[in-house]
Amino acid sequence: MSTTALSIIDTDIHERAELDALVPYLDKRFRHYITEAGWVPDRVLPYTQLTAGGLDRADAKTADGRPGGSDLGMLQEQVLDEYGHEWGILTGWLNASAFHPGWAEFKTALMTAYNDWQIENWLDKDDRLVGSIHVNIHDPKGAVREIERLADHPRMVQVMLYIGPTDSPFGDPIYHPVYDAAARHNLVLGIHHSENSRTALGFHRYFIEWHTLVPQVFMSEVVSLVFNGVFDKHPDLKVIMIEGGFSYVPHLMWKMDQQYRELRAEVPWVKRMPSDIVREQIRFATQPVEEFTWEQFSQLIDQMGSDELLCFSTDYPHWDFDSPLEALPTDMPDDLKRKIFSENARAIYERLPAKAPAAA
Amino acid sequence: MSTTALSIIDTDIHERAELDALVPYLDKRFRHYITEAGWVPDRVLPYTQLTAGGLDRADAKTADGRPGGSDLGMLQEQVLDEYGHEWGILTGWLNASAFHPGWAEFKTALMTAYNDWQIENWLDKDDRLVGSIHVNIHDPKGAVREIERLADHPRMVQVMLYIGPTDSPFGDPIYHPVYDAAARHNLVLGIHHSENSRTALGFHRYFIEWHTLVPQVFMSEVVSLVFNGVFDKHPDLKVIMIEGGFSYVPHLMWKMDQQYRELRAEVPWVKRMPSDIVREQIRFATQPVEEFTWEQFSQLIDQMGSDELLCFSTDYPHWDFDSPLEALPTDMPDDLKRKIFSENARAIYERLPAKAPAAA
Repeated sequence: MSTTALSIIDTDIHERAELDALVPYLDKRFRHYITEAGWVPDRVLPYTQLTAGGLDRADAKTADGRPGGSDLGMLQEQVLDEYGHEWGILTGWLNASAFHPGWAEFKTALMTAYNDWQIENWLDKDDRLVGSIHVNIHDPKGAVREIERLADHPRMVQVMLYIGPTDSPFGDPIYHPVYDAAARHNLVLGIHHSENSRTALGFHRYFIEWHTLVPQVFMSEVVSLVFNGVFDKHPDLKVIMIEGGFSYVPHLMWKMDQQYRELRAEVPWVKRMPSDIVREQIRFATQPVEEFTWEQFSQLIDQMGSDELLCFSTDYPHWDFDSPLEALPTDMPDDLKRKIFSENARAIYERLPAKAPAAA
Repeated sequence: MSTTALSIIDTDIHERAELDALVPYLDKRFRHYITEAGWVPDRVLPYTQLTAGGLDRADAKTADGRPGGSDLGMLQEQVLDEYGHEWGILTGWLNASAFHPGWAEFKTALMTAYNDWQIENWLDKDDRLVGSIHVNIHDPKGAVREIERLADHPRMVQVMLYIGPTDSPFGDPIYHPVYDAAARHNLVLGIHHSENSRTALGFHRYFIEWHTLVPQVFMSEVVSLVFNGVFDKHPDLKVIMIEGGFSYVPHLMWKMDQQYRELRAEVPWVKRMPSDIVREQIRFATQPVEEFTWEQFSQLIDQMGSDELLCFSTDYPHWDFDSPLEALPTDMPDDLKRKIFSENARAIYERLPAKAPAAA
């Protein structure tokens, strides 16, 4: 099978750097943190991903044993060519916002190395890929510097934050300079959970419990951004929640609206109903979508009050990859398909070039 | 206005003990913890309830300044007589499960004192009230002893747990003896959040954020109980989630089912689809219900796949009290009204006497 008739903008593709590969890109002052002192990324999750390939699709690992998402050729073969993607938005894997706040200077430098590695090894090698500026939210000034450094790159389309284990919801004003910078450069703010994201009761006894409750941190970030006025400061800023699905969105809209009606005196800077803010400024990458019939799916769209909130994503190369051909109800009307598979993403990723060149 | 035509079983009424009032009921060995050493209940929430009466309806406070829920006469006037309640289920306010696990013996004794105070001051004084056996989950053996001590009381209908700040979801097998005891005596397991319940990102900057995210701990407890096999061990046990509303339930059912399909090998003791377990064994007290139209409300019922999951509650005397006359869509069909206002509760609270005597 070759391509689908649909134009696809895939809002969640994880390219992956082996740590050693980043060292040549890293500020010389910090290389020994990795090469000598053996720093590795924090990983708080007390389980492995209990599936045939661990975190990845078993068939996405390379023949020489590197993890899924390490190899451009495999990404092309298994995704970009397979489904005829118009665009793939790279969302990375190594993001300092998900780590402990300590060693901020090192981690900010690591994000610089990561971004340069991403450009050289991915964006420069396939014209269908666009990228994310990874930043260290725990060093807001450094994050702003990194955004400014790369803001003119023609294929950087968003600023990327991963959610870590600390109690620091992203709405806190100490982080607002990062959003000011994103808004200034018309970059989308992408928010992704991580293997360090907790739940309301910490890490439960089984992986299935944690994986079921992953949407909680997305709900928490929406609430934090909305009630701390990020969208009132930046009415043009677009935020996309990536890899949390969307079936929690109606509940969250109702609950935020109810609480806003009752308690808005506490947050007088919030001027719109929270559900309106969501509809105007927040989007949701679809994966991992539950197995919905068209009737169930359309009911959810109806409850959200807009068919412009969902942006298709595969989450390649993870084990719970969503195929563009199977994940969503196949009997969805064509106009809605077009919206979810490309138009909704195109509407928020305004920096996306008009059209990708033909594949190499 | 006097009574409604409906029979009402109110599944969440908070009677409240001033701490001093409990001392005479407390084991002598522990009285000095309160009277001399000044112990007060843990309260982790870093905000006050930012409403006219704080935690309570302003009109539910007593003339001499005691908090709402302290006075039986006011409860009778404002709720039981006002709406013609058939039954009010007392859910308390002081529950050791929501506190730090330390000083377990003292807190277990405090629950005994609380329960005796509840019986003498509330159950013995109004025949329309039934009660909850409050237990200290952090002392499972003590909790079982307390259940056994009171299991023969004709108007105790459930075992009550409040959710605290610690990472100890209730599905953990160390707590299962408590559920064994509840099941043995046909007591419902009631689960309630507390002012110590966290969110996935801890305590945010504003009260409205925390209050919006309260449903998270209920989702976490459902997931924990389901995937740790509590309902497989006890297929007749009924659990009710109290004061978290219910608009999160469709999302949670879909997400649990999806994860179960993909990852059930990890939890082979779970034999049914999680959404079936919910439909068969878990119920949700309605308050604080969002402002739903009948169309929205019936869509939610449809998504849950059962009209037997919701049990009406007022949450008296809290500030966001739900009136039986206004909280739910008034144009709901009569048969569904009967289910939500009384029949669904009656079906799970099997120990509820057939009919309350006429009011005193």
